[in-house]
Amino acid sequence: MPAQLLKGKPIADKIKEDVKKEVEDLKAKGVSPSLVAIQVGENEASKVYTNAQKKNAELCGIKYDLQELPADMTQEQLIKHIDGLNKDPNVTGIILQMPVPEQIDAKVCQWRIAYEKDIEGVTPTNMGLVTFGEPRLVPCTAQGAFELIKSTGVDLYGKEVVVVGHSDIVGKPAALLLLNSFGTVTVCHIATGQRGLTEEHVRRAEILVVAVGVPHLVKGDWVKEGAIVVDIGINVKDGKLLGDVETEVAMEKAAWVTPVPGGAGTATTAILMRNTVEAAKWQLEMKQS
Amino acid sequence: MPAQLLKGKPIADKIKEDVKKEVEDLKAKGVSPSLVAIQVGENEASKVYTNAQKKNAELCGIKYDLQELPADMTQEQLIKHIDGLNKDPNVTGIILQMPVPEQIDAKVCQWRIAYEKDIEGVTPTNMGLVTFGEPRLVPCTAQGAFELIKSTGVDLYGKEVVVVGHSDIVGKPAALLLLNSFGTVTVCHIATGQRGLTEEHVRRAEILVVAVGVPHLVKGDWVKEGAIVVDIGINVKDGKLLGDVETEVAMEKAAWVTPVPGGAGTATTAILMRNTVEAAKWQLEMKQS
Repeated sequence: MPAQLLKGKPIADKIKEDVKKEVEDLKAKGVSPSLVAIQVGENEASKVYTNAQKKNAELCGIKYDLQELPADMTQEQLIKHIDGLNKDPNVTGIILQMPVPEQIDAKVCQWRIAYEKDIEGVTPTNMGLVTFGEPRLVPCTAQGAFELIKSTGVDLYGKEVVVVGHSDIVGKPAALLLLNSFGTVTVCHIATGQRGLTEEHVRRAEILVVAVGVPHLVKGDWVKEGAIVVDIGINVKDGKLLGDVETEVAMEKAAWVTPVPGGAGTATTAILMRNTVEAAKWQLEMKQS
Repeated sequence: MPAQLLKGKPIADKIKEDVKKEVEDLKAKGVSPSLVAIQVGENEASKVYTNAQKKNAELCGIKYDLQELPADMTQEQLIKHIDGLNKDPNVTGIILQMPVPEQIDAKVCQWRIAYEKDIEGVTPTNMGLVTFGEPRLVPCTAQGAFELIKSTGVDLYGKEVVVVGHSDIVGKPAALLLLNSFGTVTVCHIATGQRGLTEEHVRRAEILVVAVGVPHLVKGDWVKEGAIVVDIGINVKDGKLLGDVETEVAMEKAAWVTPVPGGAGTATTAILMRNTVEAAKWQLEMKQS
């Protein structure tokens, strides 16, 4: 039996519906979730994201403010700008769009965002909370992958989980979410590949998450019978969109496979909206305590 | 050839020697590292630790202040006390001794410690920095395990690493330190054991860290030929001290095995002293920036 497609859209739609209601509830309490996206200099690729953010925010009743700052600003100026947003009670969520111009250290600036407004989950405090199994604001794509997996109804307890890719924004947080659900988690990466051991690990994965950005790195016949495969990669090759997994072949063995595109990434912006609400609630709690 | 013993004492001695020098340097700059250990109520087991802390601190030239607070204090009072220490420029490191009385939520109070004074690395911010591969104040026993492994001269890049136990203070941070050194890391735990899969994972481990607190959970013959075995467990059974690994049998196959006691735990207090210095330096940086 070929795999079922594990699509992001139904999850994204459900999240947005819930967020919309929560935003109404919050507004009734006098709290208006509001998202500021900082764009330093122009970037065509970023526009795809910021347009999607704007559309989704409006749909959910979240105020969206794209702040376009000059490409030649200094890091010090950007930090000052972020500090201002941190202090502004009318701003409940902050994103710094990547990439930033080279005179700016992206990490220093992202880490400057107040953790309770850090809706992309990029600050050490939020990553620490994920590690401790007490997540609050989780990197959106990792959270999307996690929710897609859970949506299959699988019991994660004791499952053999393999995550290929150990980036700070996807691989690590996804691995930690799955570990804290009592999966037995292996994290593979470039060094695993260089030793030729990725295949061996993938072959025993009951749950497989791949987030490396290399088209068809994971061969379809490596996939275990009945596995859940979440492929985060979206690569352009010879004019085609390819995942990190050989999806069509993988579908012959897996139980669930995410389509590319249309998988975990599809839920990312919806989760960003939910994080904006979560951030607003967190700030409300902090004010009340 | 039987395994070599991977002892903590030489590493601890070297760390203390370095710390002593660093403390002198800091004092010359007008900074005096000082450690406050908070003990709420009396606890016999804690005394072993606080006595070791005091002795090591004095040896390194670090001011040590054991603050014994009443067993019936409220959480609110303890938080207020911690806030006071956070603000006190003469206190550079803070520990909350475990356990605390039941009316107090240990986590809430530990997380209240200013991250730059959190010398046990128990706050989300410090754990997030470990996760990101930019560690600053790392949980001491996990750091000890990591340094013991590195002291063998092994190149961690691409090594098959298995960590048994996923506690917040040992298993997770040790796994993350090893992952960020490009080991291919698998984390096993109780759910792995319940599926009977711990043995299979242990058998392929070139580097094995076990921190579960179950005497001889890992059988000696599971250990891979030439492996490095770090056993964090110290269990009392029938009047004997036993590790989580069947040490004597493991020594027939492994290249390096930590003795129990005398392994990674032995470096813990020395690393706590180094963290105290690191914290003082961090605070100095923050003041200067």
